[in-house]
Amino acid sequence: MVYENMLVRIAKIELLPGHFEEYLDLLREEASASMELEAGVICIYPMYEKENPSMIRLLEIYADREAYESHLKTPHFLKYKNGTLHMIKSLELLDMEAIDPQTMPGIFSKLAP
Amino acid sequence: MVYENMLVRIAKIELLPGHFEEYLDLLREEASASMELEAGVICIYPMYEKENPSMIRLLEIYADREAYESHLKTPHFLKYKNGTLHMIKSLELLDMEAIDPQTMPGIFSKLAP
Repeated sequence: MVYENMLVRIAKIELLPGHFEEYLDLLREEASASMELEAGVICIYPMYEKENPSMIRLLEIYADREAYESHLKTPHFLKYKNGTLHMIKSLELLDMEAIDPQTMPGIFSKLAP
Repeated sequence: MVYENMLVRIAKIELLPGHFEEYLDLLREEASASMELEAGVICIYPMYEKENPSMIRLLEIYADREAYESHLKTPHFLKYKNGTLHMIKSLELLDMEAIDPQTMPGIFSKLAP
């Protein structure tokens, strides 16, 4: 499936000290619920820097802006957001353009089940 | 397919002015050849910042370090590397850890052909 108006973003989150495991649990739960319950959430791919695990990065891909706005209102996103606010030192959202959206449907196919 | 020793990386590339289109053509060709010809290249997902297109980001996922080392020796990578060296102002490579590798095979399945 190819989406014409995809919203692609890299979120850069810095955690306050002492919350790493707790934050990861909440993020895992949120990412997994979003992928399962929301058709418009194409990808939430969470990572942390090996050298500095308090630096989290998420690659987020939504089918379109409507799918993203709808995501912000879901119970699982609100639980994550409200549950992690006190753990977050800074949050930066980078809007990205995919360089080759035409071939993208194949790009992740090696990971498909 | 689940890989145990995946190498996950975010490459952050800043282009010198005046090379955007030319760079993108070479990157598209390289990413596409890597995905098609190398089983161990799980994902090369190239993006640029909407607000500042000279800032390129790539999410790169390799099956393991061997797959990555092998990638560095391919003709298509060497063509890209040697052909773009003079366009690049800075290059930063961030080694990442995937936060939920177990569920990852499903994460990109909505984009599978």
